[in-house]
Amino acid sequence: MDIGDLQQSIHHRFAQVKLVRAALTHSSYANEQEGDGDNERLEFLGDAVLELCVSEEGYRRFPDAPEGQLTRIRSQMVKEKSLAAIARELGLHRHILLGRGEELQGGRDRDALLADAFEALMGAVFLDGGFEAARRTILHIFKNRWPRPEMLPETKDYKSRLQEVAQERFRDRPVYMLAGTSGPEHEKIFMVDAALPTGEVFRGISTSVKRAEQEAARLALETLEPGENPIAFKDQ
Amino acid sequence: MDIGDLQQSIHHRFAQVKLVRAALTHSSYANEQEGDGDNERLEFLGDAVLELCVSEEGYRRFPDAPEGQLTRIRSQMVKEKSLAAIARELGLHRHILLGRGEELQGGRDRDALLADAFEALMGAVFLDGGFEAARRTILHIFKNRWPRPEMLPETKDYKSRLQEVAQERFRDRPVYMLAGTSGPEHEKIFMVDAALPTGEVFRGISTSVKRAEQEAARLALETLEPGENPIAFKDQ
Repeated sequence: MDIGDLQQSIHHRFAQVKLVRAALTHSSYANEQEGDGDNERLEFLGDAVLELCVSEEGYRRFPDAPEGQLTRIRSQMVKEKSLAAIARELGLHRHILLGRGEELQGGRDRDALLADAFEALMGAVFLDGGFEAARRTILHIFKNRWPRPEMLPETKDYKSRLQEVAQERFRDRPVYMLAGTSGPEHEKIFMVDAALPTGEVFRGISTSVKRAEQEAARLALETLEPGENPIAFKDQ
Repeated sequence: MDIGDLQQSIHHRFAQVKLVRAALTHSSYANEQEGDGDNERLEFLGDAVLELCVSEEGYRRFPDAPEGQLTRIRSQMVKEKSLAAIARELGLHRHILLGRGEELQGGRDRDALLADAFEALMGAVFLDGGFEAARRTILHIFKNRWPRPEMLPETKDYKSRLQEVAQERFRDRPVYMLAGTSGPEHEKIFMVDAALPTGEVFRGISTSVKRAEQEAARLALETLEPGENPIAFKDQ
């Protein structure tokens, strides 16, 4: 296995070359060759290495992004399709050791198989060079794959976002009403209802009217846009 | 916030104490106090830190465990209930900053809230001291929570396991039959069928009869014990 070019692409020179071979050994090959281990344990490890490195970098790059947005960014970065694209760019498909059956069935070009091999390779870098080596490699590979900060929606202002969504969907705006207050003067609680043109009402409760409105808008958006991914990504 | 005892329990002395405060600030508190950040971003990061440290240690402790077993071990170790128990042992519930509403609803004893705070705290250790500091802390906290190796089932021998399961369930043993061979002599492929007492048949294909039998037994077990978690854990 000539891995000179591969080591160059991932910016890591292996001390333990047998780790590379293991990372690129599909179980179908291992099952045919008595004694060879496959890459599944390395994939298990590499998946976690990748997840942490991408999480940390996302955390640093997007200091204003709430947790939900960080989660969406990360899942876009490490989804199977993205990792398979990276594997192809690195030329992993040329190196993977496959069993005959898997080869005949076109396994060498399967996204899942390629993504797994890439994860296993990151696990191998981690075992070979430690966390810092794996981080360096992963940040290098991902450096042009991050969404630009200006492409992230301004998520903090839920009222503005709800206004847009309601206009677009119902050609009308939501209405906010103070539904009540409670507690003594110095620690008053405000309840605000956001009513959609559909008649649905969402109640926000907080220590200021402004915050209660935001909370009501946030709740309304959760219903109007469940699981929506507001992040635009350049597709791989 | 007096965190002397907490720092001692987790074996980490924070250079940036504000990270501890952030890790222990629930969103319900942050929403009440204009200007304070909550622990959700740290939780996002800490979840990944924990996952990698537990994955790596599992990988090293159980060198013969296949990937599926490592995944099950890890998910037992980091499940909400386990993390909430750790949070209580560390006394996190005494330190968490909660909003009044959440406090009234008993939030201070909710597993989800406690598990999140623990994850956030691990994210804080990672940011404060780097990966090695987080690993040291996490391995210390988890050191008595690993399953003992002898409690892990011998997963490699699927035939023996299938024998046990079939005896127990059907009071009879599976029968193995060579169903055919193919390919030229020097790279022959063997097909073996494992027939259960129910009449169900599972076919294994490999380069030796022994391996084909194991593969057939593995397939049968996947049907007989889908999603079964064969790992006994001392409950927290």
